[in-house]
Amino acid sequence: MPHKLVRVQRSIPGGGRRRPVMLAIAGDSAAGKTTLTRGIAAALGPGRATAICVDDYHRYDRVERRGVPFTVLHPDSNYVDIMEQHLQLLALGQPILKPVYDHGSGQLVRPVLVEPHDFVIVEGLLPLHTKLARACFDITVYLDPPEAIRREWKLRRDCAERGYTREQVLAELERREPESAAYIRPQRQWADLCVRFAPIKGRPAARGTPLSAELLLRPTVQHPDLTEVLTDDDRRTVHLKLSRDADGRPVDALHIHGYAPREDSRIVEKAIWEQLSSGHGTPMPDSLGTLADGRRSEALAIAQLLVVWHLLEALE
Amino acid sequence: MPHKLVRVQRSIPGGGRRRPVMLAIAGDSAAGKTTLTRGIAAALGPGRATAICVDDYHRYDRVERRGVPFTVLHPDSNYVDIMEQHLQLLALGQPILKPVYDHGSGQLVRPVLVEPHDFVIVEGLLPLHTKLARACFDITVYLDPPEAIRREWKLRRDCAERGYTREQVLAELERREPESAAYIRPQRQWADLCVRFAPIKGRPAARGTPLSAELLLRPTVQHPDLTEVLTDDDRRTVHLKLSRDADGRPVDALHIHGYAPREDSRIVEKAIWEQLSSGHGTPMPDSLGTLADGRRSEALAIAQLLVVWHLLEALE
Repeated sequence: MPHKLVRVQRSIPGGGRRRPVMLAIAGDSAAGKTTLTRGIAAALGPGRATAICVDDYHRYDRVERRGVPFTVLHPDSNYVDIMEQHLQLLALGQPILKPVYDHGSGQLVRPVLVEPHDFVIVEGLLPLHTKLARACFDITVYLDPPEAIRREWKLRRDCAERGYTREQVLAELERREPESAAYIRPQRQWADLCVRFAPIKGRPAARGTPLSAELLLRPTVQHPDLTEVLTDDDRRTVHLKLSRDADGRPVDALHIHGYAPREDSRIVEKAIWEQLSSGHGTPMPDSLGTLADGRRSEALAIAQLLVVWHLLEALE
Repeated sequence: MPHKLVRVQRSIPGGGRRRPVMLAIAGDSAAGKTTLTRGIAAALGPGRATAICVDDYHRYDRVERRGVPFTVLHPDSNYVDIMEQHLQLLALGQPILKPVYDHGSGQLVRPVLVEPHDFVIVEGLLPLHTKLARACFDITVYLDPPEAIRREWKLRRDCAERGYTREQVLAELERREPESAAYIRPQRQWADLCVRFAPIKGRPAARGTPLSAELLLRPTVQHPDLTEVLTDDDRRTVHLKLSRDADGRPVDALHIHGYAPREDSRIVEKAIWEQLSSGHGTPMPDSLGTLADGRRSEALAIAQLLVVWHLLEALE
């Protein structure tokens, strides 16, 4: 959406610098943001992408939060205006001194200098919360797993990697739920691409099969045209379906079944990559689709490739 | 200098917010910046002035500096581009998340939110180092004591308040001298007002008399007209002298002798205050002129009042 950047350019200093392409990856805690980001950054190549997490803009440290009547999901728990300011600066190629929240100690520590490369990947809980923040992005993604699956992911991660007990994680999920509903999930409406990993109804999968996925391609941006290779015919393992979103808006829904063979996903990947504007000469990345546990997911690979396609297309 | 702010307004976001009046107080370590600032902030009244120190924009902490071939005075020791960015943002009424250098531990710690009030006082070693930084200020002050006096002040402060030995402070002064000459002192040329506390040649003062001062009023801004109450007649204890700066530029030099009685300084203070544009209705502040040791200095009082006058005049 080039008009967005023009708007930003008019209102911000640094118009003379090279403007990076800005990607937002929004979603609740443990929705899969890091997994999605990792493959995208790797595909772009070393030194081409700057990744930041906007959860560093916490207003309170862990001790101070005990006296605060809401969780970290609440906009008032975060310096949202500073986040907006920093996103605007990055969008115009300017460096920022980014705050840092140390998840280990729960403290706010020494800030770091962040200089934007060709691509800036901004992931976190609230990157799409305000209009000004949204205006900074060229492409926006929302990760939307069913709550039951996200809880499972969060339990697994927070117990294994962050040293919490199962009961602590469940209590925290409970405590956060009203704010998830009020502030996190509404961001889904602003995404150009919604990614939902979930079993597909009526298609039970064998144990050990990776999760199926639905990618909602909103016509808010120009996606690669997949109508030639995929039709509404849903007998295939990857198919495109013209449908309506929950709010009635028309969308393309790209379904990738967990048991899709590599050959089927290759057809889609090739169709996406062939629509990359000439002159880039970029070979199709082959490192996509790696899950957190190391397994491969065709659905993840296609989601990542779509995002990479958008990023390269938006580069001037 | 209204054209400066116009320039900033064109190139920066937030033009819609109320723009504060920006004051820079530049000068070397222990040149008297804090003493000057304190009285000005007090005169403006509680909650009207935001004071920041740009020495917080250190790139390295104390341990890291051991491996760096220059001192904290060097621009490369500081995030000068981030300082410029933050000054621009403040100049347009936007908040910043300011880095913090802890002088006690020598560490860079959790940043703080700074929201500009009507007046922003920016003091430090390098606020006038770059063109972009200078363009953010409505009024600029440089503190210019003779080196011998500044050394005395620094020895006294750093030994008493910062726990250094006399030898350590002297060694540090030596180490810093080339960078003082290269980066700090050249900022004097950009000041609308240069303040030099020093004995006046040929006028020996009795022991215990506060230092005399020379205030250089550069015609880069419109100062209050003092030609009516003060003439080139230098028999008085406060007098105005048309002269040339070291570089040949014409300036008004306001001399205030250390033994000036309160009556003489009152004449000047009244003349300054009467030239405040009507409508402000601000009574003349009576808390000015307090030195770090609690004694009163007529010269300091006049310098502070001049700055306060400029700040109030620049307020829209």
